[in-house]
Amino acid sequence: GTGADNDLYINQAVVFIEDAIQYRSINHRVDSKSLWLYRWYYSRTWQWILSLTITIILALAFVEEPSSLTVTSDVRYRLPAWNPPCGLTEGIELLCFLVFLLDVSVKSYLIGWKEFWKNKWLMAYIMTLIVSLTDWIVSLSFFCRESVRIRRILRPFFLLQNSSMMKKTLKSINSTLPEMASVVLLLAVHLSLFTMFAMLLFARTKDNQQDKEWVVYFRNLPDSLTSLLVLLTTANNPDVMIPAYSKNRAYSIFFILFTVLGNLFLMNLLTAIIYNQFRGYLLKSVQSSLFRRRLGIRAAFEVLSSLRETPPNAQQFYVSAGAIEQVLQKVEMDSRCKQAIMRSLKICSCDQLSAAQFQKLFEELDKDAIMHHPPSPEYQSHFMQKMQFAFGHPYFGYLGNVVALANIVSICVVLVLDADKQPSERDDFFLGAINCFFILYYLLEMLLKILAMGLRRYLSYPSNRFDGLLTVILLILEIATFAEYGFPHPGWRPEFMGLLSLWDMVRLVNMLIVFRFLRIIPNMKFMALVVTTLLDLVKNLRAFAGILVVVFYAFAITGIMLFKGAVVPLGNTSAANTTHNNATLQCGTYEQLEYWPNNFDDFAGENVISWCSAHFQAEFTTYLFSVNLICRWAKIYFVAWWLISSVIWVNLFVALLLENFIHKWDRRCQRESLSDIEYQGTVELMFRDVLEEPTEEELMEKLHQHPHLQLCR
Amino acid sequence: GTGADNDLYINQAVVFIEDAIQYRSINHRVDSKSLWLYRWYYSRTWQWILSLTITIILALAFVEEPSSLTVTSDVRYRLPAWNPPCGLTEGIELLCFLVFLLDVSVKSYLIGWKEFWKNKWLMAYIMTLIVSLTDWIVSLSFFCRESVRIRRILRPFFLLQNSSMMKKTLKSINSTLPEMASVVLLLAVHLSLFTMFAMLLFARTKDNQQDKEWVVYFRNLPDSLTSLLVLLTTANNPDVMIPAYSKNRAYSIFFILFTVLGNLFLMNLLTAIIYNQFRGYLLKSVQSSLFRRRLGIRAAFEVLSSLRETPPNAQQFYVSAGAIEQVLQKVEMDSRCKQAIMRSLKICSCDQLSAAQFQKLFEELDKDAIMHHPPSPEYQSHFMQKMQFAFGHPYFGYLGNVVALANIVSICVVLVLDADKQPSERDDFFLGAINCFFILYYLLEMLLKILAMGLRRYLSYPSNRFDGLLTVILLILEIATFAEYGFPHPGWRPEFMGLLSLWDMVRLVNMLIVFRFLRIIPNMKFMALVVTTLLDLVKNLRAFAGILVVVFYAFAITGIMLFKGAVVPLGNTSAANTTHNNATLQCGTYEQLEYWPNNFDDFAGENVISWCSAHFQAEFTTYLFSVNLICRWAKIYFVAWWLISSVIWVNLFVALLLENFIHKWDRRCQRESLSDIEYQGTVELMFRDVLEEPTEEELMEKLHQHPHLQLCR
Repeated sequence: GTGADNDLYINQAVVFIEDAIQYRSINHRVDSKSLWLYRWYYSRTWQWILSLTITIILALAFVEEPSSLTVTSDVRYRLPAWNPPCGLTEGIELLCFLVFLLDVSVKSYLIGWKEFWKNKWLMAYIMTLIVSLTDWIVSLSFFCRESVRIRRILRPFFLLQNSSMMKKTLKSINSTLPEMASVVLLLAVHLSLFTMFAMLLFARTKDNQQDKEWVVYFRNLPDSLTSLLVLLTTANNPDVMIPAYSKNRAYSIFFILFTVLGNLFLMNLLTAIIYNQFRGYLLKSVQSSLFRRRLGIRAAFEVLSSLRETPPNAQQFYVSAGAIEQVLQKVEMDSRCKQAIMRSLKICSCDQLSAAQFQKLFEELDKDAIMHHPPSPEYQSHFMQKMQFAFGHPYFGYLGNVVALANIVSICVVLVLDADKQPSERDDFFLGAINCFFILYYLLEMLLKILAMGLRRYLSYPSNRFDGLLTVILLILEIATFAEYGFPHPGWRPEFMGLLSLWDMVRLVNMLIVFRFLRIIPNMKFMALVVTTLLDLVKNLRAFAGILVVVFYAFAITGIMLFKGAVVPLGNTSAANTTHNNATLQCGTYEQLEYWPNNFDDFAGENVISWCSAHFQAEFTTYLFSVNLICRWAKIYFVAWWLISSVIWVNLFVALLLENFIHKWDRRCQRESLSDIEYQGTVELMFRDVLEEPTEEELMEKLHQHPHLQLCR
Repeated sequence: GTGADNDLYINQAVVFIEDAIQYRSINHRVDSKSLWLYRWYYSRTWQWILSLTITIILALAFVEEPSSLTVTSDVRYRLPAWNPPCGLTEGIELLCFLVFLLDVSVKSYLIGWKEFWKNKWLMAYIMTLIVSLTDWIVSLSFFCRESVRIRRILRPFFLLQNSSMMKKTLKSINSTLPEMASVVLLLAVHLSLFTMFAMLLFARTKDNQQDKEWVVYFRNLPDSLTSLLVLLTTANNPDVMIPAYSKNRAYSIFFILFTVLGNLFLMNLLTAIIYNQFRGYLLKSVQSSLFRRRLGIRAAFEVLSSLRETPPNAQQFYVSAGAIEQVLQKVEMDSRCKQAIMRSLKICSCDQLSAAQFQKLFEELDKDAIMHHPPSPEYQSHFMQKMQFAFGHPYFGYLGNVVALANIVSICVVLVLDADKQPSERDDFFLGAINCFFILYYLLEMLLKILAMGLRRYLSYPSNRFDGLLTVILLILEIATFAEYGFPHPGWRPEFMGLLSLWDMVRLVNMLIVFRFLRIIPNMKFMALVVTTLLDLVKNLRAFAGILVVVFYAFAITGIMLFKGAVVPLGNTSAANTTHNNATLQCGTYEQLEYWPNNFDDFAGENVISWCSAHFQAEFTTYLFSVNLICRWAKIYFVAWWLISSVIWVNLFVALLLENFIHKWDRRCQRESLSDIEYQGTVELMFRDVLEEPTEEELMEKLHQHPHLQLCR
């Protein structure tokens, strides 16, 4: 019937506009039931459940055997960790898999059968689920005693497939790979030629005292390659050349030449290539988001224009204002935006809207929300007005900064004075008394500001919220301290014990005071710029960070599987034997360096290792390669990790930072005059001036390609 | 008289055109004698003398007391170096100063008295000379026994003032300083806040076994600052957190947070800022060069147009072709260019040239020289033609590459097999025989190529020149080897001694073969691009490199002055005592690490230290700060050096590399089709499409501002 049809059209329009708001693709089923399912699928609840499930399944690695639930990861001191009984984590895992199964079937249904076969991500999703479930069954049938669990490595895939940004980023990283491979090849050629040179230069000689270089670094091909690879990261920079340099100054030329060519030129060339590839990346992605938004709105217009109530007009299509209002009521969107659109619909006061008018109506979505701070209270009393003027003035804020600085300096002075004192010699009276006064000042400052600005205006500034929260916490801590230990007096010994020792309380207060000092940031122009750039960057980096997490996770799990138990404490448990003599150990080995906590026995520890090895460092390299003695594959594993994390990912990060910063900087210069308006800066806004609006033809062509929507024209 | 006037005008035009060719400023005196002096000053001879003088005065540091003329710089083995007698280096220095005096007086005279007072560089030049000469006199009057020689630190100034590129670069570095300072300030805030946090977190506790972190890294404020500063460079990355991490996993969060914020965000922000500042740098400098060229040519036109022979024309000025020809005869320039200009002058066949025509005539200067390789010889014989086809074909070159690769692989195999052999067990027969065959093949390849291409065409390719030269050297070495030790036979022992041992000869041959393998570069497209980018970069980097040399030199000299003799060998001379036990030394000290050759006792050694410390590394940092025990200032000295060299200079380098590479890359994509023409790529050409031609008005305005030239209109 017509009514049902109209309802369907309205619902379609609602969903299309929601798609536009969220920059989603509109290529999904559009019948009534599917629309209901679609809205449910993209409802906050389901998306939240999905995110929670992904978080849980990823976090399982910390709890699963080998669990990370020990205070230390040092093999010498570590107590046996609590391991969950067989079936507990597996049960949780099964629940997660069920959620994913539901997710994948709804998703597949919604995009339709035809599209499904074209969508490699969905296929991979299903494959991953099948493999994981099989592995899970194998695991249970062995009563969790099987050694290899493939499904643990596959887990990050669930994170990857859930984010369209990450998939897009992965695609563009993929397109950079050929060029990166060229530079890596160049690096390999550089490395191998220099290795041959080195082996010829530092060959074994008759004189045993002369060939230290050979013994330590260039004994054979793998050793030489390793030495120079590590030199490429400048990790063993002076060490590797010391024996040769000690023999003859001229040998230093070889090493300097190698480092200049490899580290300075080729490594930075990699940065240049990656930056060059990613230069347009942000712009392109914002452009395609814009296209999706325009397309969604246009689709909504098209379905609304086929509503029966519209008078059939062969030339131009129109949409009635009533239908729009009906749709807007149903759309879930930011209430501020919705009101603005309603208002402009009323102002327009036309009964029929053309496609262009309809698009214009929704331009409100692209506009930056200008923050309006609530007004200050208006006091009648003359005295109160003066107070308000005094304490609402920026100078009062500056005074607060100066006082915070004074507090920091006083803490610093006490720290320097107390640095070498035995804990028993310490007296917290001075610091306690001073901090008490400062915290009272902070409280006073907060209250006066609230008085001057009114509570709502005070809270509308993020810096005030930060400030106020810390002040309240400090006050609570201080009151707790006084309640427990009385007021500061000479001989207020830090070893008084309560819930926490007085010493810990004072330290905590001091740390919070140091942290509170960050409130100066918005007052310094350049710092504010840098910090907002960094915050923006963090938003744009989510996709990259996600991919890093995926790689990190896979590497960490592989590391545990390969090298679990590779680091074994020396001889009989030397945990108690803390006085053991360092001199009996050879320098540079991990025993001497006490790298005991760095082992491959649990997930958290493995993560820290990966973090450390991303910054290839001299001693740590030695450590990594002494693991090599235990397992030959460790070397390849770590070189691969270094290439991916340090070389490629760090360069990607630099490229993105450059891109972001340069745009931001240019924009700042343009908007210097408008600086007192706070923008809720989004990437879209950053590129406002350079974005191209999609043309009518492009939109209509795309609409006609829609797999489920039949347009009447 | 008119004739003399005409001669003057011609000479002026000649000098202006030479200025245009060399992109020099035209603001100099233009009377007859000054012009002669000017041409003499910019003649190759005088410029060569000047460069030589600068090289000599800079190189003196290697020879002067403390001289670097020892084979090793290891304090344990070093023999007392030969020090030049008092007066020798001082005499050479005086000669250099005299040359500089002449230089500065000619320069000052040529730009004229008025301009001289505005030129700060010239004033500084004179001041430097005065201080240096005073210091020199003091030095001689103490019979070279004075301890402080200021003039040594001032020397790099002579390098600086002689290059206009370096002065320009310095200016633009200078304009970046405020923003760099902001980031450095941010880094300082970051560092100091985290230091306070660390001191509060890792405070001394009662339990002595628990506070290893405190003992080693955070004992007091300077120690804590140092630990975290070094962590900022990730040099002590895992070490610094090991004791705390061993106590509790959670402490790793502190260190990871610090590194992410400091090293990943803030340090890369510095790169972004510097890149942002230098983005337009190359373009701007090329644009100003273009302006100078156009201005020089315009000035030449103006003076020529006031020649008496020209018929006075109120509206437009003309220059006669005869006068141009006269000028061209006298101008010193590339003969190819000169011929091209002459030719187009004849083709034009107009008697009078307007300003535009005149400019157009000299556009030949901007054109890229397309390399024309001489033609191959044409053989009559059918057999020879076939030979020519076969050996002139690229596949023959590829075959050569494959053979070179095979040679490399064979050397590699022998190296791997021989790696662990005692020198007395080695037998060079196999490698000798193989190399002999390969070198014969190389000779054959060279001869066949010469046959196919003709000697001139063969030599016109740089890759062939490289190849041929190495082949000839290899041949000579091989013949010398055979003459000395006979043909390879089993038991061809490497220890046979001649001028060089057979072992050394074979190693040398192998190294050259490895080096010769670089001929594959032009055959690999991406590699060729990278290498040409790097070569271009080296050209553009000269100014930066010069500034680095200046800073390096000043730091090295300061280092010698401050820390000479700071590194003293352990106890009684342990030079002979090579069996001394490592175990008795504490790990991580420079005694254990055997950093003896790294000392501050001479210039060459100091240079190597500076190089190493530019890449702050873990052990090396320990070393640098153990020097601190001897002298407190060393720490500040090294931190300053690290900031300048590693942070600022490396970032400048990256910025320039990005700029260069991205332009080159864009250009490559445009010119894909023209790729078979070899361009002699210059920076000017890279920017051809984006450069703006200066307008007539700009040129004339600048000309009217000329301090010495009176134009008739």
